[in-house]
Amino acid sequence: MIKKIILIGAGNVATQLSKALLNAGKEILQIYSRTESSASGLAHKINCPYTTRPEELLPGADLYIIAVSDAAIEEILKTFQFNNALVAHTSGSTDIKVLYDYDLRPAVFYPLQTFSKDVDVDFNDIPLFIEAKNDNDHKILTGLAKSLSSKVFSADSRQRMLIHIAAIFACNFTNHFFYLAENLLKKHRVDFDILMPLIKETVRKVELKGPFNAQTGPAVRSDKNILKLHSEMLSSVEDYQKIYNFISESIITEHTNNREKHKNEKL
Amino acid sequence: MIKKIILIGAGNVATQLSKALLNAGKEILQIYSRTESSASGLAHKINCPYTTRPEELLPGADLYIIAVSDAAIEEILKTFQFNNALVAHTSGSTDIKVLYDYDLRPAVFYPLQTFSKDVDVDFNDIPLFIEAKNDNDHKILTGLAKSLSSKVFSADSRQRMLIHIAAIFACNFTNHFFYLAENLLKKHRVDFDILMPLIKETVRKVELKGPFNAQTGPAVRSDKNILKLHSEMLSSVEDYQKIYNFISESIITEHTNNREKHKNEKL
Repeated sequence: MIKKIILIGAGNVATQLSKALLNAGKEILQIYSRTESSASGLAHKINCPYTTRPEELLPGADLYIIAVSDAAIEEILKTFQFNNALVAHTSGSTDIKVLYDYDLRPAVFYPLQTFSKDVDVDFNDIPLFIEAKNDNDHKILTGLAKSLSSKVFSADSRQRMLIHIAAIFACNFTNHFFYLAENLLKKHRVDFDILMPLIKETVRKVELKGPFNAQTGPAVRSDKNILKLHSEMLSSVEDYQKIYNFISESIITEHTNNREKHKNEKL
Repeated sequence: MIKKIILIGAGNVATQLSKALLNAGKEILQIYSRTESSASGLAHKINCPYTTRPEELLPGADLYIIAVSDAAIEEILKTFQFNNALVAHTSGSTDIKVLYDYDLRPAVFYPLQTFSKDVDVDFNDIPLFIEAKNDNDHKILTGLAKSLSSKVFSADSRQRMLIHIAAIFACNFTNHFFYLAENLLKKHRVDFDILMPLIKETVRKVELKGPFNAQTGPAVRSDKNILKLHSEMLSSVEDYQKIYNFISESIITEHTNNREKHKNEKL
């Protein structure tokens, strides 16, 4: 069973994950970050030791979690000595194989969620995807995951990247559309808050009906007049016009194709 | 005060609006739809008379609400005799002026929400945007709106269209990204449900921090390696690759510009 954990990284994921691990009765032996303010900030929040020096990394943890940006993982691996310890990264899109060339037992612990340092989340609801090079490590890491969340799955590196891409569509890209909507409203001094009931209802409907059946609006109705009017209205903000036309076209195409598919299935 | 209402249309908006009006103690004198099944379906649900014949439209209502697709509004206006009654359409993107050439008192009653016949909504939270050609009609229509919702605003036709476009970005386009994510997951037999906690958290964060500060992911970090990996992974599904690259580029551009703006403001 995993009890003692060291966290390498002090960013959004490390912050929320360390809180969840403590809540599950685990012990955080140490936090490492190369940035003094990040390391001390998180260490202070969760009341545990920290270091900014790779050579001060403590031995003897049951698990070392690398929760840093994808680009920084390799640097960590080159710098640290893990002496055959269990080491898991938390990245959606980094292959487990990047861990293979080092003296450690490779694993991945990927939480499917958007994290911020200052917004706490309930881990129990968060899907956790586990991968490990050897079966016993897979088993004990799955055990740890189940102490945090009721939704624990196995995923290999290819599946995990695909899930990560789907998450980017569902989270980062939708958030970007909230941002574009906010900017449009700002131009006419209208507050973004007026969209919140609509946004919440959009999410409620997708859960009830699924995204295909939940779709509304001029594109899915193929209402060419309105699409043209909107495009003209956006002509002064070039990028918005381009995005409006592009996504409307995609909605029309996907819904036409899907309707055809449904028809063919019925024949 | 508006008491007696006739609804022209029996679709998503008409269904939800008629329920809200009844809850607010209003009387639905009649439902009109050219489609027998739609008209009788809604009339049966809310227990009121209906007709499919324009010539049977009852006189004497305090308000006639035209809740049909934008493309069908003009046909309604050409077909019906309103005899100087108060007539409001519910469209986000149809100018009030389309009502000017007829014997009626023009108005608009635009609820900012995504409606489905089978998913009931709480109108109290829905922003309602009012426009009317004459001041007294504006006043009584605002009174009606306030009996339904705590969020009642005035908006002219240009503002309303802009709000509608922002709503399309925040609702229809985000729902389309849910659909694209679902399709990606399906290819690997992963259920869309695993994304629901992420989607809900995305909405909780946008409400807490606003969309600019809530953004996470490889594009806002300008993580070129991951963006390239994902784009390659999507190379077999052409549209998805195009959309992935296009929206990632938009996130990078908007966030770079906005950071510059923030910097300039601070100087």
